[in-house]
Amino acid sequence: MIADVYIELKKGVTDPEGEATKKALRLLGFRNVRSVSSCKVFRIELDAKTREEAEAEIKAMCEKLLVNPVIQNYRIEWVD
Amino acid sequence: MIADVYIELKKGVTDPEGEATKKALRLLGFRNVRSVSSCKVFRIELDAKTREEAEAEIKAMCEKLLVNPVIQNYRIEWVD
Repeated sequence: MIADVYIELKKGVTDPEGEATKKALRLLGFRNVRSVSSCKVFRIELDAKTREEAEAEIKAMCEKLLVNPVIQNYRIEWVD
Repeated sequence: MIADVYIELKKGVTDPEGEATKKALRLLGFRNVRSVSSCKVFRIELDAKTREEAEAEIKAMCEKLLVNPVIQNYRIEWVD
């Protein structure tokens, strides 16, 4: 099974990468840019018998390694 | 208008972040993981009169700053 795990910053947390990108775009002349925010996606392929089993495993991966729950949220989207 | 710009590595290009994440997950005991690949998303909000104008501007941003065309592909998805 293949899942896309979207990891983004919680509301209110500063997004230095997004801010820096916005500044750079404006310096390059893109004055219509209002805001830029960044997000990370991991596409994970794993062996599992059922969708539930796979989802439980991916949630465990997020909690143990991929996501910092203090500043980040995540959501899982199934590709296959 | 709001667009999500997905930036991923072209096929055949090594993905060190994905590889390292896969190794770390396996070391943590997630032995069912077959592969991990990483991808970056920028959510860009910009002022534009038409979708076509906005799309042309976002393509220019990708070509000038956001994307390295030697190793990366990008696609645009409209949120609003």
